[in-house]
Amino acid sequence: MATLTDIGVAAAINILGAIIFFVAFAILRLQPFNDRVYFPKWYIKGLRSSPTHSGAFVSRFFNLDYRSYVRFLNWMPAALQMPEPELIEHAGLDSAVYLRIYLIGLKIFVPMAFLALTILVPVNLTNSTLKMAKVTYSDIDTLSISNIPLGSPRFSAHIVMAYVFTFWTCYMLLKEYEVVASMRLHFLASERRRPDQFTVLVTNVPPDPDESISELVEHFFLVNHPDHYLTHQTGFLGCWGEKVDAIDHQKSEIERLSKEIAEERERLTNDSKCIMPAAFVSFQTRWGAAVCAQTQQSRNPTLWLTEWAPEPRDVYWQNLAIPYVSLTVRRLIIAVAFFFLTFFFMIPIAFVQSLANIEGIEKAVPFLKPIIEVKFIKSVIQGFLPGIALKLFLIFLPTILMMMSKVEGFISLSSLERRAASRYYLFNFVNVFLGSIITGTAFEQLHTFINQSANEIPKTIGVAIPMKATFFITYIMVDGWAGIAGEILRLKPLIIFHLKNFFLVKTEKDRDDAMDPGSLGFNTGEPQIQFYFLLGLVYAVVTPILLPFIIMFFALAYVVFRHQIINVYNQEYESGAAFWPAVHGRIITALVISQLLLMGLLSTKQFAKSTPFLIALPVLTIWFHRFCKGRYEPAFVKYPLQEAMMKDTLEKAREPNFNLKAYIQNAYIHPVFKAGEDEDDDYLILKGEPETALVPTKRQSQRSTPLPSKISGSSSLSLPEVIQDSEQP
Amino acid sequence: MATLTDIGVAAAINILGAIIFFVAFAILRLQPFNDRVYFPKWYIKGLRSSPTHSGAFVSRFFNLDYRSYVRFLNWMPAALQMPEPELIEHAGLDSAVYLRIYLIGLKIFVPMAFLALTILVPVNLTNSTLKMAKVTYSDIDTLSISNIPLGSPRFSAHIVMAYVFTFWTCYMLLKEYEVVASMRLHFLASERRRPDQFTVLVTNVPPDPDESISELVEHFFLVNHPDHYLTHQTGFLGCWGEKVDAIDHQKSEIERLSKEIAEERERLTNDSKCIMPAAFVSFQTRWGAAVCAQTQQSRNPTLWLTEWAPEPRDVYWQNLAIPYVSLTVRRLIIAVAFFFLTFFFMIPIAFVQSLANIEGIEKAVPFLKPIIEVKFIKSVIQGFLPGIALKLFLIFLPTILMMMSKVEGFISLSSLERRAASRYYLFNFVNVFLGSIITGTAFEQLHTFINQSANEIPKTIGVAIPMKATFFITYIMVDGWAGIAGEILRLKPLIIFHLKNFFLVKTEKDRDDAMDPGSLGFNTGEPQIQFYFLLGLVYAVVTPILLPFIIMFFALAYVVFRHQIINVYNQEYESGAAFWPAVHGRIITALVISQLLLMGLLSTKQFAKSTPFLIALPVLTIWFHRFCKGRYEPAFVKYPLQEAMMKDTLEKAREPNFNLKAYIQNAYIHPVFKAGEDEDDDYLILKGEPETALVPTKRQSQRSTPLPSKISGSSSLSLPEVIQDSEQP
Repeated sequence: MATLTDIGVAAAINILGAIIFFVAFAILRLQPFNDRVYFPKWYIKGLRSSPTHSGAFVSRFFNLDYRSYVRFLNWMPAALQMPEPELIEHAGLDSAVYLRIYLIGLKIFVPMAFLALTILVPVNLTNSTLKMAKVTYSDIDTLSISNIPLGSPRFSAHIVMAYVFTFWTCYMLLKEYEVVASMRLHFLASERRRPDQFTVLVTNVPPDPDESISELVEHFFLVNHPDHYLTHQTGFLGCWGEKVDAIDHQKSEIERLSKEIAEERERLTNDSKCIMPAAFVSFQTRWGAAVCAQTQQSRNPTLWLTEWAPEPRDVYWQNLAIPYVSLTVRRLIIAVAFFFLTFFFMIPIAFVQSLANIEGIEKAVPFLKPIIEVKFIKSVIQGFLPGIALKLFLIFLPTILMMMSKVEGFISLSSLERRAASRYYLFNFVNVFLGSIITGTAFEQLHTFINQSANEIPKTIGVAIPMKATFFITYIMVDGWAGIAGEILRLKPLIIFHLKNFFLVKTEKDRDDAMDPGSLGFNTGEPQIQFYFLLGLVYAVVTPILLPFIIMFFALAYVVFRHQIINVYNQEYESGAAFWPAVHGRIITALVISQLLLMGLLSTKQFAKSTPFLIALPVLTIWFHRFCKGRYEPAFVKYPLQEAMMKDTLEKAREPNFNLKAYIQNAYIHPVFKAGEDEDDDYLILKGEPETALVPTKRQSQRSTPLPSKISGSSSLSLPEVIQDSEQP
Repeated sequence: MATLTDIGVAAAINILGAIIFFVAFAILRLQPFNDRVYFPKWYIKGLRSSPTHSGAFVSRFFNLDYRSYVRFLNWMPAALQMPEPELIEHAGLDSAVYLRIYLIGLKIFVPMAFLALTILVPVNLTNSTLKMAKVTYSDIDTLSISNIPLGSPRFSAHIVMAYVFTFWTCYMLLKEYEVVASMRLHFLASERRRPDQFTVLVTNVPPDPDESISELVEHFFLVNHPDHYLTHQTGFLGCWGEKVDAIDHQKSEIERLSKEIAEERERLTNDSKCIMPAAFVSFQTRWGAAVCAQTQQSRNPTLWLTEWAPEPRDVYWQNLAIPYVSLTVRRLIIAVAFFFLTFFFMIPIAFVQSLANIEGIEKAVPFLKPIIEVKFIKSVIQGFLPGIALKLFLIFLPTILMMMSKVEGFISLSSLERRAASRYYLFNFVNVFLGSIITGTAFEQLHTFINQSANEIPKTIGVAIPMKATFFITYIMVDGWAGIAGEILRLKPLIIFHLKNFFLVKTEKDRDDAMDPGSLGFNTGEPQIQFYFLLGLVYAVVTPILLPFIIMFFALAYVVFRHQIINVYNQEYESGAAFWPAVHGRIITALVISQLLLMGLLSTKQFAKSTPFLIALPVLTIWFHRFCKGRYEPAFVKYPLQEAMMKDTLEKAREPNFNLKAYIQNAYIHPVFKAGEDEDDDYLILKGEPETALVPTKRQSQRSTPLPSKISGSSSLSLPEVIQDSEQP
């Protein structure tokens, strides 16, 4: 049992570790030769370029100005300075709203921690149940609900707090949903003209013996949307799978290959078998597109399916042509597969572990036998191998989950990630949360739960919860704090960039390609945050001392990710915060779980009056969720006609002669038809027409972006004056 | 324990009872003075009129032709003869599809019974477990799964049969869903022009300080649907509740009241406070209406809500003006109330029972004391009173459930009935099905289940199932068979009609009003049918001997209700079989319940291999349900644009100058604004324009409608020759 001192020491060590990371980061980021690792976003936006061609040789690689090292935590306030509207413009709405998840964590848990520490901790502390009981206990336990004697009226304080916390969480969630929904609508409304605003994705086009897919689509929409149909582009798939490699151009054979590519494209375009029964249909007005996306087209609801086209970068082309029956079968198979993955994942790992032993390795690679037989190495291998198999599985888990989503047939990257995220959350809940509280594999737990009554299950888990507080505090520090600190250092991209830079880079374009800005990774990041929401809500009433650790995580993560979003990440797509309903839903889930577990816990405390008081909480919470779903979710799924009409009218008045058809013509082209050189165009397409005056930032101060200092000569840089780091002389 | 002979005797008694009912019906229906009780549908359709003004006096009231009594079951084949398309035209799609519920019962259970009786019964019978065990058992039990020894490999026959039955049921359901969906689409497509095809109901119109509701609606739709908007009618409510009585005209004061009504209408129309924030908005084309009904209008998804307007008769006016927040609160309250109603309904009844005892009555009405104190009367009261309280509750239950649906805020009668039906089914499941299998009140069961593990619950119920077979066979005969036979006799409407006829009727119109054709009563009838589906599916594998009784019920009910639909019922509204998804869903529910209970039962039979084989069944069934939902449900919710466009185009070509605005102008008027005399117009509005040639029937033979015989002189009747009963000379 860890004492408060133990926890304190562990916290100190972890904080020290984090500080070391931050110092390392502070030093590395100031070196010009790391610039592309720590500020790739600015390079991609074209607001920064390599400092390699001017200035003293050394200062091209190292920052010799000692003053810049003094304030090594400078980047933190700087990361917080960029106002939200500017952040949205700089990095997109997805990123800005993603940051709000951390922010809502703070909004929920800071007042909660204040209340819990000032009210519940004294209530818990002023008992001597644990002392009297003469059991082994830790200091942490005296601060928790465990210290209250059975049947004590003091439990009413916890019930009241459970109500207060529930109402507070719901209130915050409501406010946040409202804000995010209006941010999304404002974002969509203030967007400039973009192809996906006029375009609907049509899938499951039925085959027709007399007409090609393209003709069929044109006729169908000319007939059924006569006043609004503009044009369409059909998708290509049939022969796609094997051919893509042929398009990966080798530097040396680029000439010959280019010709081949052109021929291949020609062949694809003319080969009707390669055309998949899906199309991007564009309309003359946003109103027309909004109507088509929201309505049913044909009497068979599994044909001519329409939905808003994802933005061009977001399309997952491989899944555009899956027929309805196949889709439902895939969903079933993946549901069953995920069930087995969650509850039986230990079985294949145990199998691998049984294979990957010393004897197995010696058999496979006999020439290594003398080395392996060295006692020290042998013990290392025996100690690490089983862990490595598990670790490898966990590393590949997000990939496996993404693959599952792909098999399920979602047609945009954003929806793939959302699906994978919800699966990852479930996996974490079963295997990390329940797995830590109740020992045994997930399958053993499942077996236990099936054999337990509905009111025993919350008891079994609830009783174990206070005992695991120390474990989860350690978990938060190791997984949360250290993970965040590691995130900012970007060790892997740093090493890979320098390796590439050293061995491969020949031109400026090569150097651009060697950059790996990465992106937020919703499918792994969000479930992790959600796990902390779960811990925070479950322990808020039971062991409030855990809350400050959670708050520390949210605060740290908020600053670090805000910095990364501003300087590093380059989002692959923009979904307009389409993930918020899922985020909201999972916080609600965590809230309901915490309420059920509290009910279970209190019912073992001989406080008989508790259940009737607590049962109302999950009912009200679920009702609240349904209310929010009806009130706000449509903003994330549908597109109101009023908004569409307003934008159409405005635009028509402003540019009466705009040639929309020409503008949209090539927006949705299969990647096969894009040469490597064209890729930059995507970015322009996404951003709509190039803005008349590209103002990179509206900030007053730019302390956070230590651009190549003037010492190294910035004459070649075309950066606007405002974003120069004013601290550097 | 009932033996087979007991059951046989009970069946004989019940069949005899049914035959007596049928004979009584045969006699009563042939009497001209009962004509309006047994054939009101034909009077309402205007195809039959009173035989009172001509012919011999006696024959005006009694049918003296002995030959018509000979074939007293004649109406049965006659009821089956009308082909389905004609039935749809005669009584509407709702009625025709309602009959298909019985038909699918036969389709599912007849082959099932054949298989079960030829395969499972011999497998069960050729054991002597019960004989050896020396327990009391009945003959029925030797035919059931109870007769198979523990752990016997013979259980595999039952598992295989469970698979066969599941696949068969699903296959039938799939076929049926397909047929009903295409019937619905065909019905909608072949309908003549009707106001609701062009009209969308808009609710939650936001208040505006500068404009009246009517102006606001007009402006909103002129702006957002400029090419399609035609006209609108706003609803009236505010002052409605109290005023309706003023409009019930008393015969004697009709003059004065008519004037008052006119003034009141005038006042309502001009009083803006009485106008509720809802409107029926009509469009120039079906396409325009389909678009508006399926799309979101404003950025706040709880304002400007649009949905297809129910047909005028189907509108439930009181609920048109409920704001969104109030609606969600109402749903929560009703959900909680229904939970208590289902599980605690015995408490108020017990309370009433405790009050309604001899002493209570003596106190309330002391002057009756001498009568009550008579020993015989006292024992009767004591014996019946408690039962009466329960019986009264059960009689009022459908009304209570309908009231609950009304509070929930559904805006059409059809959706009110659908909701009440699903609640009634749940209530029956908990209190009749589970209540009969496991003794104890619903609340005690709930308590038991909460304290039992997830895999114990199916065991507890499953084990008790074979023992209750006899009880349910009796239940089917008493509740099912006798209920159906009673339905056809229409004893209550018969008595009421003659009472009214004797005391009140003065004019021909009075006589029309005295008729009470009734209607199908989806909210009570469908849950009853579903209960038999549940029994049939649960017992198919366990005690197959129950199946013939179910089949008998379905067959009898099919014939009787087909007869009633043709000759008696007058549906209040037409929803186009919108209830089928609910019917389908409940049969699936019954199937899953039967699978879980079989799993529970077999797991107690020491046939360990059973669970893994059976667990796949519910998974596959639920998947099947999801598949069907995606494939067919949209046909019942949305209206495909392709269909709308097709009809619009056709109509425009046929009648280019039709004045739609004038046609729609007064379709949706609040009942307050309709004079009593206008009510007949509703029917015309529903049927669209009067058909060019009103062909009442296309049948070849009309044995089933014994019109006033020629003896009584039919010269005054203007009935087409074809529908004269050819059997009467």
